[in-house]
Amino acid sequence: MPKMKAAIFVEPGRIVLDEKPIPDVGPLDALVRITTTTICGTDVHILKGEYPVAHGLTIGHEPVGVIEKLGSAVQGYREGQRVIAGAICTSGHSHAALCSCHAQDGPGTRHGWKGMGGWKFGNTIDGTQAEYVLVPDAMANLAPVPEGLTDEQVLMCPDIMSTGFSGAESGAICIGDTVAVFAQGPIGLCATAGARLMGATTIIAVDSVPARMEMARRMGADHVVDFTQANPVTEIMRLTDGRGVDVAIEALGRQQTFEGALRVLRPGGTLSSLGVYSSDLKIPLDAFLAGLGDHTIRTTLCPGGKERMRRLMDVIASGRVDTRPLVTHRFKLDQIEEAYDQFANQRDGVLKVAITP
Amino acid sequence: MPKMKAAIFVEPGRIVLDEKPIPDVGPLDALVRITTTTICGTDVHILKGEYPVAHGLTIGHEPVGVIEKLGSAVQGYREGQRVIAGAICTSGHSHAALCSCHAQDGPGTRHGWKGMGGWKFGNTIDGTQAEYVLVPDAMANLAPVPEGLTDEQVLMCPDIMSTGFSGAESGAICIGDTVAVFAQGPIGLCATAGARLMGATTIIAVDSVPARMEMARRMGADHVVDFTQANPVTEIMRLTDGRGVDVAIEALGRQQTFEGALRVLRPGGTLSSLGVYSSDLKIPLDAFLAGLGDHTIRTTLCPGGKERMRRLMDVIASGRVDTRPLVTHRFKLDQIEEAYDQFANQRDGVLKVAITP
Amino acid sequence: MPKMKAAIFVEPGRIVLDEKPIPDVGPLDALVRITTTTICGTDVHILKGEYPVAHGLTIGHEPVGVIEKLGSAVQGYREGQRVIAGAICTSGHSHAALCSCHAQDGPGTRHGWKGMGGWKFGNTIDGTQAEYVLVPDAMANLAPVPEGLTDEQVLMCPDIMSTGFSGAESGAICIGDTVAVFAQGPIGLCATAGARLMGATTIIAVDSVPARMEMARRMGADHVVDFTQANPVTEIMRLTDGRGVDVAIEALGRQQTFEGALRVLRPGGTLSSLGVYSSDLKIPLDAFLAGLGDHTIRTTLCPGGKERMRRLMDVIASGRVDTRPLVTHRFKLDQIEEAYDQFANQRDGVLKVAITP
Amino acid sequence: MPKMKAAIFVEPGRIVLDEKPIPDVGPLDALVRITTTTICGTDVHILKGEYPVAHGLTIGHEPVGVIEKLGSAVQGYREGQRVIAGAICTSGHSHAALCSCHAQDGPGTRHGWKGMGGWKFGNTIDGTQAEYVLVPDAMANLAPVPEGLTDEQVLMCPDIMSTGFSGAESGAICIGDTVAVFAQGPIGLCATAGARLMGATTIIAVDSVPARMEMARRMGADHVVDFTQANPVTEIMRLTDGRGVDVAIEALGRQQTFEGALRVLRPGGTLSSLGVYSSDLKIPLDAFLAGLGDHTIRTTLCPGGKERMRRLMDVIASGRVDTRPLVTHRFKLDQIEEAYDQFANQRDGVLKVAITP
Repeated sequence: MPKMKAAIFVEPGRIVLDEKPIPDVGPLDALVRITTTTICGTDVHILKGEYPVAHGLTIGHEPVGVIEKLGSAVQGYREGQRVIAGAICTSGHSHAALCSCHAQDGPGTRHGWKGMGGWKFGNTIDGTQAEYVLVPDAMANLAPVPEGLTDEQVLMCPDIMSTGFSGAESGAICIGDTVAVFAQGPIGLCATAGARLMGATTIIAVDSVPARMEMARRMGADHVVDFTQANPVTEIMRLTDGRGVDVAIEALGRQQTFEGALRVLRPGGTLSSLGVYSSDLKIPLDAFLAGLGDHTIRTTLCPGGKERMRRLMDVIASGRVDTRPLVTHRFKLDQIEEAYDQFANQRDGVLKVAITP
Repeated sequence: MPKMKAAIFVEPGRIVLDEKPIPDVGPLDALVRITTTTICGTDVHILKGEYPVAHGLTIGHEPVGVIEKLGSAVQGYREGQRVIAGAICTSGHSHAALCSCHAQDGPGTRHGWKGMGGWKFGNTIDGTQAEYVLVPDAMANLAPVPEGLTDEQVLMCPDIMSTGFSGAESGAICIGDTVAVFAQGPIGLCATAGARLMGATTIIAVDSVPARMEMARRMGADHVVDFTQANPVTEIMRLTDGRGVDVAIEALGRQQTFEGALRVLRPGGTLSSLGVYSSDLKIPLDAFLAGLGDHTIRTTLCPGGKERMRRLMDVIASGRVDTRPLVTHRFKLDQIEEAYDQFANQRDGVLKVAITP
Repeated sequence: MPKMKAAIFVEPGRIVLDEKPIPDVGPLDALVRITTTTICGTDVHILKGEYPVAHGLTIGHEPVGVIEKLGSAVQGYREGQRVIAGAICTSGHSHAALCSCHAQDGPGTRHGWKGMGGWKFGNTIDGTQAEYVLVPDAMANLAPVPEGLTDEQVLMCPDIMSTGFSGAESGAICIGDTVAVFAQGPIGLCATAGARLMGATTIIAVDSVPARMEMARRMGADHVVDFTQANPVTEIMRLTDGRGVDVAIEALGRQQTFEGALRVLRPGGTLSSLGVYSSDLKIPLDAFLAGLGDHTIRTTLCPGGKERMRRLMDVIASGRVDTRPLVTHRFKLDQIEEAYDQFANQRDGVLKVAITP
Repeated sequence: MPKMKAAIFVEPGRIVLDEKPIPDVGPLDALVRITTTTICGTDVHILKGEYPVAHGLTIGHEPVGVIEKLGSAVQGYREGQRVIAGAICTSGHSHAALCSCHAQDGPGTRHGWKGMGGWKFGNTIDGTQAEYVLVPDAMANLAPVPEGLTDEQVLMCPDIMSTGFSGAESGAICIGDTVAVFAQGPIGLCATAGARLMGATTIIAVDSVPARMEMARRMGADHVVDFTQANPVTEIMRLTDGRGVDVAIEALGRQQTFEGALRVLRPGGTLSSLGVYSSDLKIPLDAFLAGLGDHTIRTTLCPGGKERMRRLMDVIASGRVDTRPLVTHRFKLDQIEEAYDQFANQRDGVLKVAITP
């Protein structure tokens, strides 16, 4: 039985490179040989034991690769094709999928909805930090990479860009909107780019790391607020003449950013939340206008499926957005433990790493 | 200067009937002689000092009456016409109004949005528990009562029915949805009726007062859960085969109902909140799926304006919904202090009272 | 090779009952033994040669039956289960499906959208007027019938009710809307029921056949206009005080009904078109307000997929709508040629027929 | 009674500069001294007698100016303030306005909707090609010009940019959409810019005038098709690999462009129509997929109101779009007859003219 290398979760604090069998290909699957993948903040939560996964699981959910083998029932693809798949794999046929809520894809019962059920790679099935990954429901998930695009150009599509853009989309940003984006990590930066792409005319980004603040401008922010220098709520209210913003995007997963986003929202505005929280949240009565502010709070996991991937790659191919600057460091798969160490500790201004088997 | 009787807020704990001058009519106003009005739970918050208003203000925001006098610039109406106006008065011309967010109507500046700015009657201007009320921006707010409808038939339109229905509308209920409505006071009962009207096929109402539970069935609930007999979250999950509801409507304004509504929500579902909260809210991490559940939480004040009123009165005229059973008690304006006492203390199964000057 | 009886298209004018092999079951398919099916107006178009299909094809697209055999990759069902499937079969994984446009489901390429590609039964694959039908992509399409519902109760779900309701849904009917429905055949009747279910408060149905006009009232119409007695445009404008309707639903597929629907539309209104047209349409300049009326014209094929079917059967199970009165005649599969004759010629007040193998 | 110069419609073929009294200011009005205005294609329709207006009416609906005098009931502005107003003046209080359909603003009755009722300037009341214009319902319509923007920078906001952008907005363009824009006059060019602003990733513009084709690229088109060199339908299908476009925008008002837009639409796509048509339209059966293509056809007049104007000026102020290149020629009001001659005959590559009193 042929073997491959894979980054495996052993126990909290330990993700190690080890060998595993190359998986068998079921009728609806595709085996993809990974050419580039990356590490996500969520993987760090797994590493730290803050998000539980099975021992022995291969981690990672952001694949760029080449089709090695197609399942017997898979049509419309050919082996050797360059593809990506979303971090979220939809079955296409669950009740959630048939309601366009692919991220909450559940089993095929009368009532199939499952919280985060679409997040399979590196969560409920083996992930992408490996030489090969098995993509389930390949026909719904595999998206061919347009000619001329490099691996690093599309590496953000499976998760970072899809999630970040969804922050703008779930906020239903309109032409002329004023938008605040709290936190400018990779997802926040993509939310900033997404807000720009949808026609927001005043985009205010909040962070404190100089390199991220600079990148925020590059991705489309009109103003960048350093929260160590000024209270971001005060500053955003000042920048908006006391009106507040139409849409506030939360991209970190903390009470402070969630609450800041709520406090800068105009009556009738939308708080679009992308962060992964790790404790209960508080909604302050005054910020919430006692529940009478016509506010919307919306959370979004990450849109997936091949059509989503096609669209995101078209954004890249059109030159509208370039996410290459987010890839600040590169590692071989053999160096993945070192990559985790650098990424988890945010050393050397790291934004995203590229991992190549 | 002619005088009229009015229910006036004196200080926390005291709303008294007193005399006031009949107001002058500005060019955009209409003076309406009240024929029937009512008391709202919000008025009780005012009475108890939980919601601050100016001393000397006339309370009440639910008018049914007759046009006594029209402002010099008001066109399209005639004196003697029977009308209602929404609890929320839109200016029609603020930035919020021009974004269809009439309840958050603000002043006419570049950035005019004001939290709850559309709630004027009995909040920022004199209200309707009086012999006369001055309706601002009359052309945007006065809605003629269709022939054949009695005062009591349309008495719920200005607030209770508009707010209650908005719970269903803000939940974007679709044909075939499963909906839970937490609390069956007058607004919750109208939310139940609204859910039915929009095509929900399974409606689960939660309360514990037998008369309200029975009324819930009459307004369209398929199941009624008595929260003193069973944990409503457990019971709703059981009734939905573990799937949860598409839309949960909160109609009380408490942590318990808010949290219950969140806990029964399927991934991807919407929590439509109508309650007026009086303390901070907590979002439990697990109920919120750590922010990854594609949830929407939406609050709605109360849609206003004459078109909204026209539509609600058409609902009544068509016989689709009958809110008359909600009026359980009747008082003269002279008895308003007694009416407050009964309503505030929920004596004798009171749901809503009709007050006639 | 076991055989089954099937209604087969031979040539324009001839659909005959003949024998065919029972089909093999592929990995994603399910073989369903038909217990009840019906004939659709579209089948009559096929019979008359107005809509071309392959010679030898089994006709029919409205299945109620029992799972006989499941494909090797199908999970979540069991043989012997009572099921329906929509007239439209989604793959779940095409680009169209992933955009929620299941009716235009196309092949699995980068750009897969195909006009009417989701309509497979009796169009591009063998249909349901037979003893057995092969359901493709079973996991996306098979919907278990809730206990207690008879075949005839759910017989309209696969097409008539799904299409008719979509007329109301594509019109985005709101609480308080005024709606006109042109033509009260089975689909128009379901559009009337759908408008009622979504909260329209004035529903005006147009037809001339007494039995259909009476059924229109039963399905929820407030007014019924006999177009042989009065010009329906004039009559609808009169009934709406000259304002016109918010939503006009076309349910026949003729210039006259399309144009009538456009002419009664208020500025800003929506024409929701369900009919299958057989010639070019004309948009009169005046009815279209020279293109300046903020009008929407929307066509809808028929929403499909198991989640749609689940919701429609829930409507039936909840008692909100009862489509049994639409089934006016019953035939054995052996009598299908006679059934076609009666249905195509609208003899004896036929609305829909039930066919049982 | 003080006089002013104004461009007056005398009879078909004759718009002349003449004198008129400066109008009186009603309580809700504002008198604006025009500093810059322009001529619209619609004005040419009026000139040619193709669109009827009253003899003696002042033409023009695109004002940039200074508040000269405010009505007695107007609050929130000051005399001397630089302002624009939309070509469409909303009352803010009609039923249409309260449904957000300001362009179809009608009188204040129970059922007030009026086709094109919001288009008042140069249609039902005196227009802007004059030294002064009276703006009705000033509080809903006057939008202060942000500091630092010149007249020519905001001159397209009242109509061209609002209408053009609405082509993209009514198409509900999403990130990653493919869009075709038929005709690249001023409105088509703004539709192209709007499509870009909303995140379309492939924009295909159609025209034949070299200057317009070049300008199309400048406004954001990725491909420009010269319809004299290639069949635009064939070419667009080729550019989209046979799939067609998600959204097709019609910006001319002819059968040819309307039909082309329909023919390039993918199933499920939206045709957003901006043109003013002057004859009946034909919908070819095949292009319409017999009414089974899940198509949407939507017409849009022109969004108005001060909030719309504020947003458009913010687009300009943010630098996202620059419409100055559309102003190709400049005239004094005294030269307006010459300006009409040049504009109506499209001499010298004219796109839009600036007229300064």
